[in-house]
Amino acid sequence: MKVLRWYGAQDIRLSDVPNAVHKDNEVLVQVAYCGICGSDLHEYQDGPHAIPCGAMHPVSGHQAPLTLGHEFCGQVVAVGDQVSTVKVGDRVAIEPEYRCQTCRYCKSGDYNLCESMGFIGLMGDGGMAEQVAVPEYMLHRLPDTVSYRQAAVLEPSAVAEHALNRSALKPGSRCLVIGLGPIGLLLIMLARLRGITDICAVDVSPERLHKAQQLGAQHTLDGRQPDLLMQLQQLSDGGYDSVFEAAGSQTTFTTALQAAKKGGEVVLVGLMGDISLDAFDLVNREVRLQTSVGYRNVYPTLISHIAEGAFDPSVIVTRTVGLENALRAGFDALLSSKEQIKVLINPNPTLNEQEHQFHV
Amino acid sequence: MKVLRWYGAQDIRLSDVPNAVHKDNEVLVQVAYCGICGSDLHEYQDGPHAIPCGAMHPVSGHQAPLTLGHEFCGQVVAVGDQVSTVKVGDRVAIEPEYRCQTCRYCKSGDYNLCESMGFIGLMGDGGMAEQVAVPEYMLHRLPDTVSYRQAAVLEPSAVAEHALNRSALKPGSRCLVIGLGPIGLLLIMLARLRGITDICAVDVSPERLHKAQQLGAQHTLDGRQPDLLMQLQQLSDGGYDSVFEAAGSQTTFTTALQAAKKGGEVVLVGLMGDISLDAFDLVNREVRLQTSVGYRNVYPTLISHIAEGAFDPSVIVTRTVGLENALRAGFDALLSSKEQIKVLINPNPTLNEQEHQFHV
Repeated sequence: MKVLRWYGAQDIRLSDVPNAVHKDNEVLVQVAYCGICGSDLHEYQDGPHAIPCGAMHPVSGHQAPLTLGHEFCGQVVAVGDQVSTVKVGDRVAIEPEYRCQTCRYCKSGDYNLCESMGFIGLMGDGGMAEQVAVPEYMLHRLPDTVSYRQAAVLEPSAVAEHALNRSALKPGSRCLVIGLGPIGLLLIMLARLRGITDICAVDVSPERLHKAQQLGAQHTLDGRQPDLLMQLQQLSDGGYDSVFEAAGSQTTFTTALQAAKKGGEVVLVGLMGDISLDAFDLVNREVRLQTSVGYRNVYPTLISHIAEGAFDPSVIVTRTVGLENALRAGFDALLSSKEQIKVLINPNPTLNEQEHQFHV
Repeated sequence: MKVLRWYGAQDIRLSDVPNAVHKDNEVLVQVAYCGICGSDLHEYQDGPHAIPCGAMHPVSGHQAPLTLGHEFCGQVVAVGDQVSTVKVGDRVAIEPEYRCQTCRYCKSGDYNLCESMGFIGLMGDGGMAEQVAVPEYMLHRLPDTVSYRQAAVLEPSAVAEHALNRSALKPGSRCLVIGLGPIGLLLIMLARLRGITDICAVDVSPERLHKAQQLGAQHTLDGRQPDLLMQLQQLSDGGYDSVFEAAGSQTTFTTALQAAKKGGEVVLVGLMGDISLDAFDLVNREVRLQTSVGYRNVYPTLISHIAEGAFDPSVIVTRTVGLENALRAGFDALLSSKEQIKVLINPNPTLNEQEHQFHV
């Protein structure tokens, strides 16, 4: 079967590999769509970051080279002997976090903090493939009213939903989102769904600011304006209750802290390295620095929202590509232009053609 | 009357000044005890930090030179025409945060975040004086079962109690306190009072570690040990739920972050300047950075705890000095040795002699 396999930085290959084989507690999924994530781009640009090289991941038992892709969905084509919750033919979304199932975090339900944290598609063979073997616990059956295009964007939606759960946002809160990649845009949609109406969005791309406005941001500001902070202070009447940092740079982080109101919070969603901050100011203004990684226990809620028509994450999809041209029209396009937001790979076009057509 | 007045760094003078005069909405308090705070020491060493110089504080209407002292209590000797809640002869503790009473924070009860934040004794004439004029809203009447020695330590107790309120501590939590000045020691006592028993305390002073043990810390560790972090990991079985950073340095801050468990928190109580942190690790381990400044709405609870005999903050008092020798035996002694923890100044020794003697 055909897969997109990571061999090293700048070295992702369309490879022909033996068909995936599932274990007793796994399911074989024929992939309908697999999104390209910022993490995939990082691994492509200058990885490895998360991909295990030279030592196997303790839960997946895999290491590089491996097949990328952790934002995927598809149809069950075979099930292991121990599998009881899904059957052949089921349409499923994959929640790609590995769980060791034995550490304190997995046992308490906080499996996003698993001591052997990992993702299928980064620490084990993932969804940029015709077929992939997936542990049963990662599967969520899809109602007929959720399309594959929507289900493929569940994973970044889950990142945004978990960040909102970690935040102190409540109806009436003033909210600022800095960085309008897929996560930033989904944060806006999901905040709106929680009844938050006072949302300001900041980015440097006019296209993304326009998209944020379409999706419900009340105000949009170009992050390069010299008086950005003054404008934010005015729009928020002295500062935001919750600021989501989804850009991941020292500059945007500092802006986020300064834009939070006294007693407010900054929620770090974007990944950064070492950063510096003015702790005197942070303490004196009693601003909390909240963090959010991955997700836990949010897929069922999100699937319900989509099924009910309240939320459609597929609106951020800008392009669909085949496995063959995913590197050029997917990875390279995302890296070279802000016009592409979410690119989906469809390794089995016939599977999607069978699907009931949704209007999104 | 005699006061200790700050004129500049290294320049605190025992001065003879006109008697304090109270306004219509103020009360004249004869000071029983006034504690020397770390903030006072900072102003003495290399201030001004908080003291207004060259421009008046908007609420107090004062600027340097001014009388230090914000941890004080005493007896009401005169009341303004508009004062209704206390009368001459009442024993009172002072909650020294100024409130503009008009900003959104004061109106919502979050007066520690007042837009004109300030403290009597730092932004206006304070309690290192025979008498001091105090706004009525700062006063808390003391029950007979609360001594002046105890009431003088209410202010740092309030700092610790508010930090605990800001934390996610709950019975069963593992708690680490880094830095055993007055705030660190009071954090231990007040955490115990909340049913927290798994408390580890870190400092570099053997005397303070011993004190922490006496006050209820289950474990104490010398912060200079090279394998400190490994020991903390072992004692906590993988990390603490809540780490209180009450030392205020880059080194202790980094230790605090590393000692927090996944999904745990670091509560910043100590004041620092610019600090750096590994944001990748912070986010990946979903550690929250909580902050706490001053206090709000905690004096009544603390006074009840003391009145009921459940909490005695005066156990951290190591010395009592007169106004005349406060500079040498108070300020200088605190700066030169870790043996002194909390030093109280008693500007009116006869007032204390009248008081019922408590055994502490």
